[in-house]
Amino acid sequence: MRVKAFINGKIYVSYVPLRVESGLVVHGERVLYVGLSEKAAEIARILGGDIVDLAGRVVVPGFIDSHLHIDSLGLALLTLDLRGVRSISELKEKLRVFASRSRFTWVLGHGWDQELFEDKRWPTRWDLDEVISDKPVLLTRICLHAGVVNTRGLLVSKISSGGLPGVLRDEKGEPTGILVEEALKHVREKVRCDLTMRDYVEIIKTAQEHLLANGVTTIGVAGCGLKVFRALLYMWSRGELNVRVRVYLYHEEGEVDILKLLDKLGIRSGFGDEYLRIMGVKFFTDGALGPRTAWLSEPYADNPSSTGKPILEPGELRKLIKRAHDLGLQVAVHAIGDRALDAVIEAFNQVKPEKLRHRVEHASLVRDDQLDDLKRLKPGLSIQPHFVISDWWAKSRLGEKRIKWLYRFKTLINSGLIVGFSTDAPVEPVNPWETIYASVTRGKYDGVPYYEDTAQESLTLQEALYSYTQGSAQLMRSESEIGTLEPGRLADFVVLDKDPFTVPDKEIREIRVLETYIGGKLLYSHSRVNYS
Amino acid sequence: MRVKAFINGKIYVSYVPLRVESGLVVHGERVLYVGLSEKAAEIARILGGDIVDLAGRVVVPGFIDSHLHIDSLGLALLTLDLRGVRSISELKEKLRVFASRSRFTWVLGHGWDQELFEDKRWPTRWDLDEVISDKPVLLTRICLHAGVVNTRGLLVSKISSGGLPGVLRDEKGEPTGILVEEALKHVREKVRCDLTMRDYVEIIKTAQEHLLANGVTTIGVAGCGLKVFRALLYMWSRGELNVRVRVYLYHEEGEVDILKLLDKLGIRSGFGDEYLRIMGVKFFTDGALGPRTAWLSEPYADNPSSTGKPILEPGELRKLIKRAHDLGLQVAVHAIGDRALDAVIEAFNQVKPEKLRHRVEHASLVRDDQLDDLKRLKPGLSIQPHFVISDWWAKSRLGEKRIKWLYRFKTLINSGLIVGFSTDAPVEPVNPWETIYASVTRGKYDGVPYYEDTAQESLTLQEALYSYTQGSAQLMRSESEIGTLEPGRLADFVVLDKDPFTVPDKEIREIRVLETYIGGKLLYSHSRVNYS
Repeated sequence: MRVKAFINGKIYVSYVPLRVESGLVVHGERVLYVGLSEKAAEIARILGGDIVDLAGRVVVPGFIDSHLHIDSLGLALLTLDLRGVRSISELKEKLRVFASRSRFTWVLGHGWDQELFEDKRWPTRWDLDEVISDKPVLLTRICLHAGVVNTRGLLVSKISSGGLPGVLRDEKGEPTGILVEEALKHVREKVRCDLTMRDYVEIIKTAQEHLLANGVTTIGVAGCGLKVFRALLYMWSRGELNVRVRVYLYHEEGEVDILKLLDKLGIRSGFGDEYLRIMGVKFFTDGALGPRTAWLSEPYADNPSSTGKPILEPGELRKLIKRAHDLGLQVAVHAIGDRALDAVIEAFNQVKPEKLRHRVEHASLVRDDQLDDLKRLKPGLSIQPHFVISDWWAKSRLGEKRIKWLYRFKTLINSGLIVGFSTDAPVEPVNPWETIYASVTRGKYDGVPYYEDTAQESLTLQEALYSYTQGSAQLMRSESEIGTLEPGRLADFVVLDKDPFTVPDKEIREIRVLETYIGGKLLYSHSRVNYS
Repeated sequence: MRVKAFINGKIYVSYVPLRVESGLVVHGERVLYVGLSEKAAEIARILGGDIVDLAGRVVVPGFIDSHLHIDSLGLALLTLDLRGVRSISELKEKLRVFASRSRFTWVLGHGWDQELFEDKRWPTRWDLDEVISDKPVLLTRICLHAGVVNTRGLLVSKISSGGLPGVLRDEKGEPTGILVEEALKHVREKVRCDLTMRDYVEIIKTAQEHLLANGVTTIGVAGCGLKVFRALLYMWSRGELNVRVRVYLYHEEGEVDILKLLDKLGIRSGFGDEYLRIMGVKFFTDGALGPRTAWLSEPYADNPSSTGKPILEPGELRKLIKRAHDLGLQVAVHAIGDRALDAVIEAFNQVKPEKLRHRVEHASLVRDDQLDDLKRLKPGLSIQPHFVISDWWAKSRLGEKRIKWLYRFKTLINSGLIVGFSTDAPVEPVNPWETIYASVTRGKYDGVPYYEDTAQESLTLQEALYSYTQGSAQLMRSESEIGTLEPGRLADFVVLDKDPFTVPDKEIREIRVLETYIGGKLLYSHSRVNYS
């Protein structure tokens, strides 16, 4: 097990307290020493280790993305990108080129928008059949509410005969291949269903490369389906899982009650190793603000007839959380609307969420009176700062009063709560600097209409970096192993091209990752020069 | 994470190659350096670590017992010892004293033998009722084929009305409390069934203390029931599991098909951490030589009408092993008789046992022609050298020709197979020096009747120590983390009162463990002086 010293660096050991050192020694997967460069070199010499000269470059602890969807992320990365396509013939040409690279049962594309086409004509199955007729094809529209399949796709998904709404037909009653809403949802499920273990492994590997290139060293998969978990375990058993994964299993999957399954073996939060751990289970309380499915205590400003509604009824949620808690499992509960958060608070009242560090995912809308409950209950909070920029339309949903309750990051941190950053990728970009930029600027430079309303919720760079490392580590009950570069911690770190503390806030997004190390091993290099 | 240097020792780093050093440095749970004492001290000084002066004492890698039953071991340690009791009144007095200490539903004792009593009268339920009437009591006879329960025990086990054979009755037809064979088996199952999670935790903790005191730092639990595994996970989640545990789950348990259960989650061999790992599953091919249930290719010498018989039919075994193998699980297959080993070889022929390092448990009787199969298939072998002494009667079972096939340790090692030591505790004593003594002397000093027949299978001390550490580590697919004290390995080691290499073989059993360290932490000290 090799010893390696990194010298002459600007090494951010931790953000709270803010500690910067020049030398770091790694033994095996862990930090042996951090401090003076000269001493690091001396230790390496005594122990017969290698020395890496950082030549003044900046090193930070690896980023910990506490909530993303590794399968959807990988699948998105392996999907033909049709954004900005200007005609059906361009779409067909792209599809033709992509077809040979696609190794899944379905050929997948995403992002077309007929509004960008000259004749504004929607693509049909006959267009796609001209390119691919022997494999099913699904190309989703930019909005994800519509898509087009080829004839083979219609056949294998049995969608035209199924009686589901959303199968668009021409004047002769023939399905055109265009599917919307329920019919599209059905086909997308079929696509998932047709993915094999081998497909999932390829998907996860693709996501993993992307994470490494972005300096993300640990992720929370919240939630995780059984097929994905099995693929993760398969990769783990072959030593192919390089990014550290903390798993929150969906609490049910088809006929399978995951709590019952985990209980049978007695598996408790944290079982696994430094690379793959089962943390607990994921529950959904409500939906999202975009489609107005987040559950609010008062109606939507732009739809006074609706408050959204719960996915899990409060009584059911309460029972499930109690069950998971009693089994020693950590829970991660999705709650975006304030009424959903009420339900979570009510459910958390019956357990001590602090003990197993139960988490609220998103906590997008928090009323003042809920802050006191949160301070008392001390749940962890996984937040997605990039929502601030992506949800630029949020004020129309919430109106003047409630916009101040949205994405209250500073308030939550000042309340002494454990706050970890995440991207919900592929919902938001994996690149941590995009998220940090959003948390620090809150859309100041991006024309976000509610910037002025919530400017006081902007974080300092130090708070943002802390939340993305130490905060996320605590959220995943892993602060003794990851999040800082103190001795004994796993040597997960990133070499940057710039010091974020010397960059103007507007330029944070331009910081680049040069190298990513996990457990002291160089796993990504910008220049592809691997000196490990 | 502290650094600690151990200096001025006689430190056996590994047995093959035989390497002895004077200094060892531990960082966190792992060995950072092993070599010169002075250099170890220097490293500790630079890193601000502590220094422990071993004052010339002998350090060896922790012992790895690759096959034992932690629950039965703990339960045996918590059972009233009635061996050598000379009268029913002495038995009652011991029971009276023990009653207040017993915290389980049942009060348990073992080891009485009415042949030692003056009047040779068997104890009855009325004898026991005089001491304990409010809790069920079970006292098993030394042979384990008979036992006595009190009236409460009869009632709660519903044994007298169940129609099972083995309930002894007096002249009036009243059950006396004496139970044999099937009736006894039923009550012993009831005793197990009545053990709570809390009971199992106490049982495991008791076994753990005993293991630590004997210098055993890692164990293979082969096999493990679900209740025991759940208790292990519970202890693990509270940081109370100090000995490292590698688990082989029984392949079925009541209605539960363990392979199906593990498959649902996708769990593969090795999942877990350095303290608790699921390795795979345990299967039984046959029984044992003592009760003539081992499956032989020719009849027993002392019972020409029987060859023993399989527990799992060869076809069934083949299917199960294939299933486990395809799920990426290691199998541990019990085979004592040579015909049972034929069945295992046949089953292993369809998989590559080397890949997942499938194990044969015991491999007590190996014919010459089977050696070639084993060399070709390269399974791991978990052997129990102390059987050589305990099974002193074996020649009567096997006769002149076959006695040479029994416990062929030297031959198996010389065949290049992975051989790990174990005790099958509580079947044999946990004390590693008893096992090493047995493997080196093969009963030479103990009047074992077949000593001369198999003296050529005696091991050297080096072979024995290697098998108890590096061999067992390989058996559990853990040689990269345990078994030696090389840098990077977990710092599991034992301080001894004597150097085994300077002790005459007859005195090996007298070597004492002074201290046991796991992951660099002092967990047992003979003198109770804890200087960690």
